[in-house]
Amino acid sequence: MGIEAYRKAAKDLIDWICDYYARVEKLPVRSEVEPGYLPPLMPRKAPDAPEGVEAVMSDIKSKILPGLTHWQSPNFFAFFPANSSFPAMLGDMLSGALSVMGFLWSGSPAATELETIVLDWLAKLLNLPSCFLAYGPDGNLGRGGGVIQGTASETVLVALLAAQARVMAERPAEDRQRLVCYSSNQAHSSIKKACMVAGTTHCRLILARPELDYALDPADLSAAIDKDIASGLIPFYLVGTIGSTSSCAVDPIADLAAIARKHSMWFHIDAAFAGVTAMLPEMQHYFAGLELADSFNTNAHKWLLTNFDCSCMWVQDAEPLKAALSLMPAFLRAKGNAYDFKDWQIPLGRRFRSLKLFFVLRMYGKHKLQQYLRHHIALGELFAGLVRKDNRFEIVTPPRFALTCFVLKGPLGNETAALVDAVNQSGRAFMISTELSGQTVARFAIGGAQTQQRHVRAAWQLICEAADGLLATARAET
Amino acid sequence: MGIEAYRKAAKDLIDWICDYYARVEKLPVRSEVEPGYLPPLMPRKAPDAPEGVEAVMSDIKSKILPGLTHWQSPNFFAFFPANSSFPAMLGDMLSGALSVMGFLWSGSPAATELETIVLDWLAKLLNLPSCFLAYGPDGNLGRGGGVIQGTASETVLVALLAAQARVMAERPAEDRQRLVCYSSNQAHSSIKKACMVAGTTHCRLILARPELDYALDPADLSAAIDKDIASGLIPFYLVGTIGSTSSCAVDPIADLAAIARKHSMWFHIDAAFAGVTAMLPEMQHYFAGLELADSFNTNAHKWLLTNFDCSCMWVQDAEPLKAALSLMPAFLRAKGNAYDFKDWQIPLGRRFRSLKLFFVLRMYGKHKLQQYLRHHIALGELFAGLVRKDNRFEIVTPPRFALTCFVLKGPLGNETAALVDAVNQSGRAFMISTELSGQTVARFAIGGAQTQQRHVRAAWQLICEAADGLLATARAET
Repeated sequence: MGIEAYRKAAKDLIDWICDYYARVEKLPVRSEVEPGYLPPLMPRKAPDAPEGVEAVMSDIKSKILPGLTHWQSPNFFAFFPANSSFPAMLGDMLSGALSVMGFLWSGSPAATELETIVLDWLAKLLNLPSCFLAYGPDGNLGRGGGVIQGTASETVLVALLAAQARVMAERPAEDRQRLVCYSSNQAHSSIKKACMVAGTTHCRLILARPELDYALDPADLSAAIDKDIASGLIPFYLVGTIGSTSSCAVDPIADLAAIARKHSMWFHIDAAFAGVTAMLPEMQHYFAGLELADSFNTNAHKWLLTNFDCSCMWVQDAEPLKAALSLMPAFLRAKGNAYDFKDWQIPLGRRFRSLKLFFVLRMYGKHKLQQYLRHHIALGELFAGLVRKDNRFEIVTPPRFALTCFVLKGPLGNETAALVDAVNQSGRAFMISTELSGQTVARFAIGGAQTQQRHVRAAWQLICEAADGLLATARAET
Repeated sequence: MGIEAYRKAAKDLIDWICDYYARVEKLPVRSEVEPGYLPPLMPRKAPDAPEGVEAVMSDIKSKILPGLTHWQSPNFFAFFPANSSFPAMLGDMLSGALSVMGFLWSGSPAATELETIVLDWLAKLLNLPSCFLAYGPDGNLGRGGGVIQGTASETVLVALLAAQARVMAERPAEDRQRLVCYSSNQAHSSIKKACMVAGTTHCRLILARPELDYALDPADLSAAIDKDIASGLIPFYLVGTIGSTSSCAVDPIADLAAIARKHSMWFHIDAAFAGVTAMLPEMQHYFAGLELADSFNTNAHKWLLTNFDCSCMWVQDAEPLKAALSLMPAFLRAKGNAYDFKDWQIPLGRRFRSLKLFFVLRMYGKHKLQQYLRHHIALGELFAGLVRKDNRFEIVTPPRFALTCFVLKGPLGNETAALVDAVNQSGRAFMISTELSGQTVARFAIGGAQTQQRHVRAAWQLICEAADGLLATARAET
């Protein structure tokens, strides 16, 4: 494909993308295909001779699109949002075109330096304590700073490995089997997975109780730690959550930090979804105590208009990270005002991912980004207010960060699951359910880049209609 | 940024990208900036108010470009290639625009199914044994298949974890500390890193000798295994390499496979760079014995025109992978003709990465892709021939897969390192050196998507001129 053919095909694709964004809200949000729908529609092997872009795009439209759940639909209220935005798409397109590798500073210096700069920018925007900044006031690199990981799961694992390297630095190898990791049982599943990958035998997921809105109780944590220490184990890694996956629960960060300090544990804060709200003055109370954390994470690819993958991680001190992940002895690592991001992550290769965040931060600017988050938070309050006023429903945990968890009360007890199914089958909105204290709970997560009040009101209407139908049937049955 | 503003900005960017590709060969290949060049050129924080795309692009041109090493330059002969192509860029642009998450089949069914189909296509193109295909002749999923990982490093780690899950399934937990991983010392550094991450204490990097062109000697491997078994250790994971990083050495796959079978070890083949040549009949001899491997990997993002990240991994049996990486007990996992790729990888989130490979396989087709690889291999032979005819140089290991490793012979003994520096400082070509048997060796790797004979000849000219200068100076000094 020559340059001119690409120019034409790419501009046609831009037009298609514009058209897609203009009509995505009209598409059924959730795909209703059955497993195995695609193989019968596709050839069994790649073609021998080249095909034109028209043929490929024709298959995209007729065969791929029906199998997609439209995460960019303004009617998508499932999981957490996976924001895209036009500025991020521009940055990512540029990154794809330049196709440089950023694993060594020397492999393409701008890739490393822009990432470091942009994460300093984001850290300041999020009011992170200055101990998380890479560049000091003198313009020189300090001990800490930011790095873009692929996902929060990788961040949780990388922080665990750093924690392990730090605690094991002066211990005999056999102590590795005595290390204990802690979080609430509402924390992300990636903590357990990180323990599986790293071979951390002891992973305590401490029950977070509804009385505390599913936040981890510091007293419970302390009790668990004391018990482990009494059994000869070594607490080494604590993950606090700001905005849990199920219900956006927020752990008491300052209290947890104090416990972590007391026991010399690495304290990681997983704020994958909600961390971006640290840029709002009215949300500061959730983030008090951050200066006592060793690492902090939020995903710009969730609620900050930056296409996947862009999981932003900051550390106060990168040395334990490098001790865990660098194959070079410390004296051979990049020196002076440079570092090699291969030593901060599990993969070797890495894309020029900071470009998309650079475009987002510059083309939105602080005020628009704050406005963007407040827009969704207000929509969340609107939605929660609608649920609260309707006595067929019950809100089970305080709505937060534009997420509302609620149940439909009915005689059969399974009405909530049925409600979520009915809403999703309509194709007009998509949400998921979760489990809290053994109960199935509907989970309405707002955060789509295009989501406006009318989409939330229409979804509520849909929920009410589905509830009417379900309750009528349930009453007839009982 | 509204749709029309994006349409205009994106089309302008396409024009810029076209222009970049037209002129990239004239840009200095390697950036010559100093560490810390960028922070003084950038504001200390993100702007408060939105900036226009022109302002951002202006900074890209004046501040970022000078800090880039141009991996897409046809004069780039360093590391291994990191191919981009216009079809892949189209697929990736589409993926960015759709921004769906593919971690669950149900999260966007087409993302999982297209990935599975496209990796079956690529497996067939590469003549992989049918045991690596996902879909059987009946169109149903079998036990194995392909998955796109981010990098070969992640693949090596994921395979290690699968190997561990398999061997540990019927052993007591304390045996984990007795597991031993093997590869040649020419294998990729990611093997050692995988052991660090997973906590595999025993990692044997067996010396590969120059007499065997740096391939692993099966006798040496067997001896190491026997010794470990005699010490009460448990061999569990063997990595064979087809195309090592330093010199493109190829391990004797069938022999290693037999040893792996004998000891019930997981046998992974890392063919990150050279694996794509399996599509060439004349290269089949390197791949004999593949049906005895448990997993195989090649990176489409190196030499197959597919932008990073696209590390293609196949397994004969995905169950051990899921046992290692799934948080769900087996009976709860996705059933029927579907699976969830979150259970095949370390991260949770995943991009719709198969789209770019889909565009590449269709828009090139088998014959053009074969022609593409043969083009570089022929250029490699041309270059090796030029080196061979010039008695100032010596080729130190058989040139293979378009990589030539050579030294400049001179009285000081440091001429090769100086040669590489001189070439790189010219900005007209970029190559790196490596170390083989303690000797610094120049490493000329061909594989740029735009690299033609004239670029190779010009680079050779440059090398010769640099050698002239260095040898004259060296003679004057001695």
